[in-house]
Amino acid sequence: MTSLTLINRATCIFNTLIKLPATKQLVPFFPAYHQHYSVSSKQVSAKMATEKTLPEIFKYVDQNKDSYKQLLKEAVAIPSVSCDVKYRADCIRMVHWMQDKLKEVGASTELRDVGFQTIDGKDVQLPPVLVGVLGNDPKKNTVCIYGHLDVQPALKSDGWETEPFELVERNEKLYGRGSTDDKGPVLGWLHTINAYKGTGAELPVNLKFIFECMEESGSEGLDSLLMDKLKPEGFFDSVDYVCISDNYWLGTTKPCITYGLRGISYYFLEVECAKMDLHSGVYGGTVHEAMSDLIYLMNTLVDKDGKILVTDIYKSVAPLTETETKLYTTIDFDPEAYRKTIGAYKLAHNGVKEQLLMHRWRYPSLSLHGIEGAAFQPGAKTVVPGKVIGKFSVRLVPNQEPEEVEKLVFDYINKKWAERGSPNKMSITAQSGRAWTENPDHPHYQAAARATKLIYQTDPDMSREGGSIPVTITLQEASGKNVLLLPMGAGDDMAHSQNEKINVRNYIEGIKLFAAYLFEVGKLPK
Amino acid sequence: MTSLTLINRATCIFNTLIKLPATKQLVPFFPAYHQHYSVSSKQVSAKMATEKTLPEIFKYVDQNKDSYKQLLKEAVAIPSVSCDVKYRADCIRMVHWMQDKLKEVGASTELRDVGFQTIDGKDVQLPPVLVGVLGNDPKKNTVCIYGHLDVQPALKSDGWETEPFELVERNEKLYGRGSTDDKGPVLGWLHTINAYKGTGAELPVNLKFIFECMEESGSEGLDSLLMDKLKPEGFFDSVDYVCISDNYWLGTTKPCITYGLRGISYYFLEVECAKMDLHSGVYGGTVHEAMSDLIYLMNTLVDKDGKILVTDIYKSVAPLTETETKLYTTIDFDPEAYRKTIGAYKLAHNGVKEQLLMHRWRYPSLSLHGIEGAAFQPGAKTVVPGKVIGKFSVRLVPNQEPEEVEKLVFDYINKKWAERGSPNKMSITAQSGRAWTENPDHPHYQAAARATKLIYQTDPDMSREGGSIPVTITLQEASGKNVLLLPMGAGDDMAHSQNEKINVRNYIEGIKLFAAYLFEVGKLPK
Repeated sequence: MTSLTLINRATCIFNTLIKLPATKQLVPFFPAYHQHYSVSSKQVSAKMATEKTLPEIFKYVDQNKDSYKQLLKEAVAIPSVSCDVKYRADCIRMVHWMQDKLKEVGASTELRDVGFQTIDGKDVQLPPVLVGVLGNDPKKNTVCIYGHLDVQPALKSDGWETEPFELVERNEKLYGRGSTDDKGPVLGWLHTINAYKGTGAELPVNLKFIFECMEESGSEGLDSLLMDKLKPEGFFDSVDYVCISDNYWLGTTKPCITYGLRGISYYFLEVECAKMDLHSGVYGGTVHEAMSDLIYLMNTLVDKDGKILVTDIYKSVAPLTETETKLYTTIDFDPEAYRKTIGAYKLAHNGVKEQLLMHRWRYPSLSLHGIEGAAFQPGAKTVVPGKVIGKFSVRLVPNQEPEEVEKLVFDYINKKWAERGSPNKMSITAQSGRAWTENPDHPHYQAAARATKLIYQTDPDMSREGGSIPVTITLQEASGKNVLLLPMGAGDDMAHSQNEKINVRNYIEGIKLFAAYLFEVGKLPK
Repeated sequence: MTSLTLINRATCIFNTLIKLPATKQLVPFFPAYHQHYSVSSKQVSAKMATEKTLPEIFKYVDQNKDSYKQLLKEAVAIPSVSCDVKYRADCIRMVHWMQDKLKEVGASTELRDVGFQTIDGKDVQLPPVLVGVLGNDPKKNTVCIYGHLDVQPALKSDGWETEPFELVERNEKLYGRGSTDDKGPVLGWLHTINAYKGTGAELPVNLKFIFECMEESGSEGLDSLLMDKLKPEGFFDSVDYVCISDNYWLGTTKPCITYGLRGISYYFLEVECAKMDLHSGVYGGTVHEAMSDLIYLMNTLVDKDGKILVTDIYKSVAPLTETETKLYTTIDFDPEAYRKTIGAYKLAHNGVKEQLLMHRWRYPSLSLHGIEGAAFQPGAKTVVPGKVIGKFSVRLVPNQEPEEVEKLVFDYINKKWAERGSPNKMSITAQSGRAWTENPDHPHYQAAARATKLIYQTDPDMSREGGSIPVTITLQEASGKNVLLLPMGAGDDMAHSQNEKINVRNYIEGIKLFAAYLFEVGKLPK
């Protein structure tokens, strides 16, 4: 690394950036940010990270809060919605934008092509995956960071109080799509590097980055990139630890570190009664309607209390030991606050804390998501749909294997279908990913726990998570190393919902947490 | 009426039209049509319609086929989708377009404001209703014509083989949204007047027109216009007969005249479990999901054979007499052709003709249309919807009263909801319109039957229809006169579906049918 004065570096960045149309217009709005970042990128001889480093970094982070918010605003303003092809150009722009940012802090980067996806019979280019490397000191541990740059869809008319793609600060919260899932955390890593460099400290670890832009749409193309390309190319050979910040605290005050995720088995249940949609006046009463068959099948899956009715589905769920049972009692989780946050009338399992935690983490759940092909608009559409596709999913837990669960569901649906005796055509398909768990006593987890305690003055809960991040397993397999989930946001951040936000506190302290985490991992024996 | 030469009239129309931006661009594309129409508008002393009139008119219609198709192309090109406010300007443009056409054939017209509709809390202007009058000879009968200019939504991606808003002729069929429902028939009346005038014959009746552009969206504002304004103003005082062409033949070859329609009772069944949509990974297993409650309720409504399960719902259905039973045996209806047209695997009621006809016409049916608020897109959305609205409707028949059926459905749903024992919030609302029947032995029907036989060389079936056109009852009440449905299109026209079409034969012979119908009604005693 070479050294440049603050001003020179700022100019240098500007000169580079004006060659990149997607970014160049944004530069003049945040000169402070770029000046700030300019400190960090090319340091000749940064000092070794010592016990004094972190307090200096924390001070630096506090001093640069505004520029961190500004950069998040810039990222949120790019509507990188991966599930809707009309935003595909924005997804690609988002990846390029992030590449520029990584370059600015000195990382070497590469955009990896992951091919096409097929939509309505047409091939559509997938956004490239951003792969980066910063540092290759053989004496240091190497941490591989994963994050995603794409977001769920959001429209103001869905019930947002502010424009979803405009970051708005209100009551110490930063509202905007992607603020917490996952642009805030991804930028957190960037700011962490910047803070190390800004204080003149050497990074205590080598870093590798994998930032994709299709996470909300099944991470298409990623598994193949990781397993068939990056792994054979040796990308993971030097990796010692993997860290992902793409989940949330359980509640709103106490931090946690996450060592388990549920898997998912997603079903497409199709019933067809006619080759086209029919007018319910003209045809109603003369056809066996696909909708009533589908509703019948969907009604056989789960009861009102969430108990899954698929035969034998609980059979392979890991037995609950006494030791495990005790774990849930100490977890900081307030069912009433949780209920109020989502505005539910009453929680399942009579709102008993331990039961709720277990049904989020260690038991499967089945949700009915919706129906494709039926009327969905406001108003009184009188169609008899010719073909409908019911969508539901089962969240998988240890020791459920996807293939086994798929077979149970298929057999059950086929049995119920035979009982129905309908002349219509039914078919069912599935997409699945396994559950994931790690050992929370691993030194990697202990390092993260020390870092968390330093920032939040409390021992983090060792938690599991109800959601699924399939790449976690792929990264575990590709690297063969310990994977850790280090959440930045709070439990009421409303990822995927209206009015998604990240607390200013979680964002800023989260940067410090990442810095402390890298410091602690740097101390682990090589 | 004053006379103008062909060229002068064409020029005159052009001069008028160029003041109207929405229409002026269309004029140069169809000069033949405008020249042709110019003949008809201002005739000083047209000859009385005699027995020789119709053959001349038929010849004239055949000679002008192309211009009739061209005008339908022009009308189809205006995407007057009434259920989606983003097409509201097109709806308004469509009404203005039709007003111009009526003016061109000499009618005096008026656009009647029918106020606003409320969408998402906002007032949105409704398209005006086009009211017209042509002729006021006290010696002639007066026929009131109703039709609609709006259409159902249509996207090529729904499965259309051609662009829905571009009329395409293939194999003697004209494909396009609105071609048969209801732009083709509405233009049919226009062409009929034009053909009378083009052959120099006097119209045998006075005509009144009511053309709306909200029929596919509940005819908002129309009832009030008819009952509270047009009726008190005396619009209906001179009306002797009402004719509506907005339905279809039973099959594809034999014409029919329709004397009955089912009513409709449309339900909005809402279940709420949370104030927002939830991530199924994070929340699945901890909430009583609204979707499973809704699916449970929807599954209690109808069985696989279409039998409605709502308690007592068949109780007030008019008893089936022996005389009525016999009626269905003579109707020309081919269940197998019907099945093939829609691509159904098997028809209800084992495909028995009489049973199918009775369940289309004289028995209620219940259809499940869809769910608002749930996932509807392609792909694997993992949302747990916070609030969902199930949509279903019951087609009503004599002697079911809407209020009675609504009460039965509400009571039934409330009972099933109590049995469910869910803590969630449920509510149900309805919009309903009564069934309609007329006496098919009325002289008005006999006149239409003679006209039909003249065109198609066969006695029409006297039929009923499974669909609902609520304005039929309003017009019956407003005028106090006999109302008749005179279909133009065939039973396989696929109104509301993908690839809607009208056969060239039905369109062109339909114009002749309308001409013969007016001629026959002209002969009825005043």
